[in-house]
Amino acid sequence: MADELHRVVVIGGGFGGLQCARALGGKAVKVTLVDRENHHLFQPLLYQVATAGLGPASIATPIRAVFGKDRNVEVILGEAWEVDHDRKELVLRDGDRIPYDTLVVAAGAKTNYFGHENDWAPHAHGLKDLRDAIRIRERVLLSFEAAEREPDPAVRAELLTFVVIGGGPTGVEMAGAISELGRMVLAGDYRRIHPDDIRVVLCEMADRVLTPFTEDLSYEAGVMLEELGVELHLGRRVERVTENAVHFAGEDPLKASVIVWASGVKPVSFAERLGVTLGDRGRIAVDENCAVLGHPEIFAIGDIARFVPEGEEWPLPGLAPVAMQQGRHVARQILRDLKRQPRETFRYKDKGQMATIGRARAVTQTDKLSMAGLMAWFAWLFIHVLYLVGFRNRMTVLFDWFWQYVTFGRGSRLITARHDDADERPSPLLASMPGRRSRTSEANPVPGGISEIAPTRRE
Amino acid sequence: MADELHRVVVIGGGFGGLQCARALGGKAVKVTLVDRENHHLFQPLLYQVATAGLGPASIATPIRAVFGKDRNVEVILGEAWEVDHDRKELVLRDGDRIPYDTLVVAAGAKTNYFGHENDWAPHAHGLKDLRDAIRIRERVLLSFEAAEREPDPAVRAELLTFVVIGGGPTGVEMAGAISELGRMVLAGDYRRIHPDDIRVVLCEMADRVLTPFTEDLSYEAGVMLEELGVELHLGRRVERVTENAVHFAGEDPLKASVIVWASGVKPVSFAERLGVTLGDRGRIAVDENCAVLGHPEIFAIGDIARFVPEGEEWPLPGLAPVAMQQGRHVARQILRDLKRQPRETFRYKDKGQMATIGRARAVTQTDKLSMAGLMAWFAWLFIHVLYLVGFRNRMTVLFDWFWQYVTFGRGSRLITARHDDADERPSPLLASMPGRRSRTSEANPVPGGISEIAPTRRE
Repeated sequence: MADELHRVVVIGGGFGGLQCARALGGKAVKVTLVDRENHHLFQPLLYQVATAGLGPASIATPIRAVFGKDRNVEVILGEAWEVDHDRKELVLRDGDRIPYDTLVVAAGAKTNYFGHENDWAPHAHGLKDLRDAIRIRERVLLSFEAAEREPDPAVRAELLTFVVIGGGPTGVEMAGAISELGRMVLAGDYRRIHPDDIRVVLCEMADRVLTPFTEDLSYEAGVMLEELGVELHLGRRVERVTENAVHFAGEDPLKASVIVWASGVKPVSFAERLGVTLGDRGRIAVDENCAVLGHPEIFAIGDIARFVPEGEEWPLPGLAPVAMQQGRHVARQILRDLKRQPRETFRYKDKGQMATIGRARAVTQTDKLSMAGLMAWFAWLFIHVLYLVGFRNRMTVLFDWFWQYVTFGRGSRLITARHDDADERPSPLLASMPGRRSRTSEANPVPGGISEIAPTRRE
Repeated sequence: MADELHRVVVIGGGFGGLQCARALGGKAVKVTLVDRENHHLFQPLLYQVATAGLGPASIATPIRAVFGKDRNVEVILGEAWEVDHDRKELVLRDGDRIPYDTLVVAAGAKTNYFGHENDWAPHAHGLKDLRDAIRIRERVLLSFEAAEREPDPAVRAELLTFVVIGGGPTGVEMAGAISELGRMVLAGDYRRIHPDDIRVVLCEMADRVLTPFTEDLSYEAGVMLEELGVELHLGRRVERVTENAVHFAGEDPLKASVIVWASGVKPVSFAERLGVTLGDRGRIAVDENCAVLGHPEIFAIGDIARFVPEGEEWPLPGLAPVAMQQGRHVARQILRDLKRQPRETFRYKDKGQMATIGRARAVTQTDKLSMAGLMAWFAWLFIHVLYLVGFRNRMTVLFDWFWQYVTFGRGSRLITARHDDADERPSPLLASMPGRRSRTSEANPVPGGISEIAPTRRE
């Protein structure tokens, strides 16, 4: 019975995949959503988790919970690996095969180190999933802990220096939030750290931050960042990243305890294994209705796809609204296909863009208006909470934000880094802090033996 | 100036250490609190995190935040290693030394595998800190994910079998909560899992659960557990624990995907390195005012100490109220010492005990009354929320509980297990699930390469 239904397999439970699957819920199709994670992540607020503003559960919802009532949608935790085009089957990493009539590729993007994945990635933290965010949060908090105990002023200064590479929305939001966390929240809890000891540097190759925004808003954003105590290093190209150091051409390296990499993304590697035409930056080339070139039975949407609107030169940016609108569009096309109706051209409705710069500061830009400051922040707050999946999350987020706003508190300042054996070993994280390595490295034979899941590693 | 003050060093930010340091806040002493973690943990609710009822941040508070205003209290993130009695200095794991005039040892306990730390611990998860709780939560959730995809009925049954070893409060609470999570919350989200497929077994050596309670309440608790669908295996001694299997004398092993070890605790290893007289089970022997035998300048309180009330035979149990009352008592004695006043004898005020058995069920016992059921649960809820450190946590916990109560939802069903490289490797956790090992073990060369903190491991 159910097997006679048209089978739609959606890869990815992000903004695009989720919208597509939801739009097909209750319809006469059998939908299988495959994701490597068990939760949908509200990525625009990931930087809040990375700076202890929100707990992970506040910005993530179990994908199953979203489809609990859509009995025609099944969710599978697994990693899409490749596609058997002849048999029209999606092959998972562990070998399982899922047959499809229509395949929707919404697998998303990952941090792009532009060829330096192996040498830079270990030292400059990307921010794409909850693990990234929790890792950054822990390293920032541990830097303060180490600084509180550090006698050497030079090492101490390094421990309290944080560098964000990339002046886009994510970079701006991270730099602003780290500076605020340090100056307004943490400093008061420590006895030997003064707010002015904390240094947050934002590096951007271009001569202004937020290049997708108007020059005026970029300027406003820059001013607001400096008000928050963020040092702007504009028009400077990062030459190399090593452990706890960012190198620029012809300058002394900038030493830091935490380096965040916010310079761009690229499609996840599944795109290469899909075996179809790829556009620039490895994105999957799609036609005017989001179908993969030469494969009408496969759609690609969101960050993994390269969609160029009719008559325009540049592809759509990797934004949540683009993925969401494409997801709903593709769902419509699948239903039209079943009714033998012609496909429609996808047209992106640009609702504008916004970025937040710390507490009660933001910039918002739409075709009609552009604002900076408190009003922009309220607009940002409203929009983001509005989009959060799940009423409960909305409530929790609002509560957390309100609480932060009135108390300057941070509810999620937890360090849960795994000591290999909590009783017998010191946290390798502390060992990885500048100046402390020598003292703890022997005590910690397991290189970075940090794991939340001990059994498997002990096996 | 401040250095002329009497120096008190408190080891441990648990119930005992926190109460002691708070009682000394604002007094004419210099207090240094040392803890391996940056947060105080409300352990009685740890099982709620392990069963996705609460997020980690709801039951943990940064220790620094607690003392933000007590300028005479400083908090240090570090691991107490040994004590230099001659120089009266506490030596940390990384070599740093902290001089003291009075030392308060409140380092707590760890899971006790009774000599099987190496062979059983990897397969039977203890529940003592947030890492333990998050690990259990992820393994339970992943068992359901694997079961949803598993074609082999035998493997599937094993994937949906959960065993809790130990019928004390922790064991009873875990068994009840896992059964509820599975039957009432998760089952609905899966397409191929029926509530009756889920099997939760509670093993207890004694012939009844909750032996510290009256026989009547034990019976009531047993009935409530069975109402929740928990299988009680009473009067049966666990002979051995291997990967995914619990062995009893002369029976087939009980195969399970998750095994929780709730059979007892023992002092952390620091107790042995302290170099003082130890009582039974390696606990530090203390006199009638909580001072370590032969060391009036050192106090030991909470789970790490063995305190036998005057005229009684048995030492006080390892309960939060005992540690808290001892912490306040010791703080008073330190201040009395400074005033040259004689020390007082510690007298424990027993406020009774309680254990919860799933949603809206609990047993409560005090010298005056004993109750079981809904009223007991409300009493339990009230007491626990009351004791939670920090107003914000109280609010969040109340909100989460209320939300769960009306919706049966679970707000924290997140799996954030570290894929070594989220894009290139499957979760080793899935690899560690029964029946799946063979299929993914090659794909995952790093044994249990699960880490929330990638940099150090990549280094």
